[in-house]
Amino acid sequence: MTTVPLRVVGPDVPRVLDDWYVLASSRELRKKPLARELYGAPIALFRDEHGRAAALVDRCPHRSVPLSGGRVEDGTLECPYHGWRFAGDGRCVRVPGLTEEPDHRTRRCASYPVREQDGWVWVWATAGDTPTREPFRFPLLDDPRYASVRQTLEMAGTVHAAAENALDVPHTAFLHRGLFRGAGKTNELEVRVRRHHDRVEAEYIGEPRPSGALGRVLAPRGGVVEHFDRFILPSITQVEYRLGESHVLATVALTPRTDRRTVMNAVVSFRLPFVPPRLAGLAGELLRPLGLSVLRQDATILARQDEAIARFGEARFVSTELDALGPTIAKLLRAAARGREAASDAIDERTFRMRV
Amino acid sequence: MTTVPLRVVGPDVPRVLDDWYVLASSRELRKKPLARELYGAPIALFRDEHGRAAALVDRCPHRSVPLSGGRVEDGTLECPYHGWRFAGDGRCVRVPGLTEEPDHRTRRCASYPVREQDGWVWVWATAGDTPTREPFRFPLLDDPRYASVRQTLEMAGTVHAAAENALDVPHTAFLHRGLFRGAGKTNELEVRVRRHHDRVEAEYIGEPRPSGALGRVLAPRGGVVEHFDRFILPSITQVEYRLGESHVLATVALTPRTDRRTVMNAVVSFRLPFVPPRLAGLAGELLRPLGLSVLRQDATILARQDEAIARFGEARFVSTELDALGPTIAKLLRAAARGREAASDAIDERTFRMRV
Amino acid sequence: MTTVPLRVVGPDVPRVLDDWYVLASSRELRKKPLARELYGAPIALFRDEHGRAAALVDRCPHRSVPLSGGRVEDGTLECPYHGWRFAGDGRCVRVPGLTEEPDHRTRRCASYPVREQDGWVWVWATAGDTPTREPFRFPLLDDPRYASVRQTLEMAGTVHAAAENALDVPHTAFLHRGLFRGAGKTNELEVRVRRHHDRVEAEYIGEPRPSGALGRVLAPRGGVVEHFDRFILPSITQVEYRLGESHVLATVALTPRTDRRTVMNAVVSFRLPFVPPRLAGLAGELLRPLGLSVLRQDATILARQDEAIARFGEARFVSTELDALGPTIAKLLRAAARGREAASDAIDERTFRMRV
Repeated sequence: MTTVPLRVVGPDVPRVLDDWYVLASSRELRKKPLARELYGAPIALFRDEHGRAAALVDRCPHRSVPLSGGRVEDGTLECPYHGWRFAGDGRCVRVPGLTEEPDHRTRRCASYPVREQDGWVWVWATAGDTPTREPFRFPLLDDPRYASVRQTLEMAGTVHAAAENALDVPHTAFLHRGLFRGAGKTNELEVRVRRHHDRVEAEYIGEPRPSGALGRVLAPRGGVVEHFDRFILPSITQVEYRLGESHVLATVALTPRTDRRTVMNAVVSFRLPFVPPRLAGLAGELLRPLGLSVLRQDATILARQDEAIARFGEARFVSTELDALGPTIAKLLRAAARGREAASDAIDERTFRMRV
Repeated sequence: MTTVPLRVVGPDVPRVLDDWYVLASSRELRKKPLARELYGAPIALFRDEHGRAAALVDRCPHRSVPLSGGRVEDGTLECPYHGWRFAGDGRCVRVPGLTEEPDHRTRRCASYPVREQDGWVWVWATAGDTPTREPFRFPLLDDPRYASVRQTLEMAGTVHAAAENALDVPHTAFLHRGLFRGAGKTNELEVRVRRHHDRVEAEYIGEPRPSGALGRVLAPRGGVVEHFDRFILPSITQVEYRLGESHVLATVALTPRTDRRTVMNAVVSFRLPFVPPRLAGLAGELLRPLGLSVLRQDATILARQDEAIARFGEARFVSTELDALGPTIAKLLRAAARGREAASDAIDERTFRMRV
Repeated sequence: MTTVPLRVVGPDVPRVLDDWYVLASSRELRKKPLARELYGAPIALFRDEHGRAAALVDRCPHRSVPLSGGRVEDGTLECPYHGWRFAGDGRCVRVPGLTEEPDHRTRRCASYPVREQDGWVWVWATAGDTPTREPFRFPLLDDPRYASVRQTLEMAGTVHAAAENALDVPHTAFLHRGLFRGAGKTNELEVRVRRHHDRVEAEYIGEPRPSGALGRVLAPRGGVVEHFDRFILPSITQVEYRLGESHVLATVALTPRTDRRTVMNAVVSFRLPFVPPRLAGLAGELLRPLGLSVLRQDATILARQDEAIARFGEARFVSTELDALGPTIAKLLRAAARGREAASDAIDERTFRMRV
């Protein structure tokens, strides 16, 4: 059976095409080429003869067959149909059987700019383009005091829906009922939201320290909770908690596989007081199943949301002040999709109160 | 995998939106909300704090998540994502975390008029509308001389196709070959068709009494067969047989789940001479598998018909006089879809002969 | 679940509608009707009372149900819904229950011209049309010196893609690596391509005789390899090899089941020196699994090609001189789809060299 791409009934989704997205982890990209997608565009990843990651439009110029179904030979990507070979920059370097020179303008494959950084393979979303900035750097990866855990997961929904979900506080008591929050008594927090030209950040003030044993482990000498949620264009989310010596930073680079399917590429970095990073890393691995349970609940609700949007043919969202970041993320994405404006560093700020 | 609504290739189907449809049986609607569809519109059913059935557009105004995936708390429907709660009339009665009043014009969910009657939950097809009539009443349900059997079944095809199939005599000898009709010798009947402003009825005159034991059981004192088939707007079909003391009335309220998928909500009420209703009810249950076999054959042919209509992109029907009701049902539906006219009670009548 | 035809996203495909296509083998068409498709149009095949193959639009004029789901009675095709019967020419010969004459202009089913020839049932692609030519004849079927093997296989892709694949030499060393070619050392061939008004042929000059035992079996007295590849409108491919007394002719009649799915109806006829046809036929059967392995690799790559074309929404092909026949086949198909021109018998010829 031929697989046929379904046209999803739904509203238009803004595409930020002049920026970097994670298409694979460095560990995934080995001898075999990888078939990836970015905003629905098929992309073949492979490593050239120097081990450098390369990204080509995943279609042989000759007969439209996906190059990712072929093999890598001498650092070139070989089409499985007629054996045409392409260098990392998209030049055709071999046409088996041909008596003339293989390289020719019409036989080139469009290539995407690539960076390999922080253990990820980043691809610039427009083939043939010259990048105007460098990819986001994941913080704390090189800090010896921190342990890090990585996780990749695909979800239904737009980058906006996934980012809002990742940075949203009020849903945790309902969607993740029992897993976290919702157990204790109600508190009232102050939330400060600051918008910059390429990001938006919410600061939560007044969150209580966890009580009992957990509180004593995280902050043996006491202290106040500091909590920030951030979105950074084109698709980075960060959740940061500090409590005394403890520090957790969860950073996710979201990748729009299609307009309506998003891949989370997450790194959780953290340090605990009196716990060496190696042991903390082990604790992180032990907590991975719990984290995945939470993410699966998020994935389920995002899938339901996305189905409903597709069925109704529109994303009708009504926000309250509790939607700290979602509406601003939508504005940032729409503006960036029209082309990133001259960076006005004016900062917008608002404050509101939330019961948790 | 996201479920994506497929656009069915096919002709436009008339939608009668100012009338009542059965969306559930009373027994199905308990503590949990139900996800239903009417002409493709998702609807959440639940019971409020008084046990009254309520129907809301199945989409939370906040983030478009289906409310039917949530739970009922204190007679309100709670969204599974952020816990917003809605009363039966669609008012938002709780936004967790919000310090201000939850009810607000923009946070209301559109609600559908609902009636619970005859063991069914009826919903008026237009949210926010004021009904201009009451739902159809299933006859004989309260008559102590009658037993009743209920059955719900979903089929491919439009309301028109399902109604025509349910009320069509000539197909029984072919589609249901061996199960009923087609066994004996040929008779010629007279058929009288009467059209009213909101219904059409066919009367079959001259049908022979079943011979042998069955005839003696149904009509120990003899008698003639009376047989009526009826369609009543927007989507009710009735098949009625009388023979001496015996009487069978099969009433179906059809529900267009989508334009091209129809749910049959059937009640067969009947009395047999010298058989108490309780025992007759037992006989009815014993005959259910046979009835379901017939319905499954109908469902199969309707699915094939619907596929062919979708593939050809049109429903091209050529009728003969034997198509007693189908063409008139189509006219009634098309007229009703344009808005029910002033009730002209003029009666149209035609007569023809049919070999059975 | 209703099966819904998916609209394939992709470029328009030329349809040659004034010609013959194989819809079944003679052996397949027995008592039961067959459901077939041609360019997506559903067609019912059956045998009339004289055993003659007939082809009707697969939709009962009455209620649009596919006739192929019915049965053949007295040489007529009976609809499974109401039992209407149709003769091979599409006339309605029975409407059960009707007191008047069944045949009527509006109750006719459109019929396709049919020929049964060479063990195949050929159908002219336009219902109600008068054929302006006769179907292609498979050569050598009646020659007692030859054995023949038949095979039918459905593949993704257009007639053009399947024909080009079947007649393409350079892909064999890559796609079929290990199965044939690609093992020995490189040779340089001369290729002569001749285009006629309804066909195009490539002649390969200088192909080496197989070495070792195989060469001695095929050509005990030596000789040169003669190799021709041909495409003949609307959809015939031929690959012909001669070496001394040995002769292989693989003829395929391609059938566009839909624009993007193609059925191969293949006959391989061959003779071997000193081997009686019966024994050669046995050898052919023994080689069938190998042939099917090759065809499955072709089917896989054609499916990938077709998916990519659908995803990109266009078939962008860049050819080199090595693409001996593909571009000309595309031209022939496009011209024939616009209406076969007056036969200009001018012959176009070009020559190039290929390394194999």
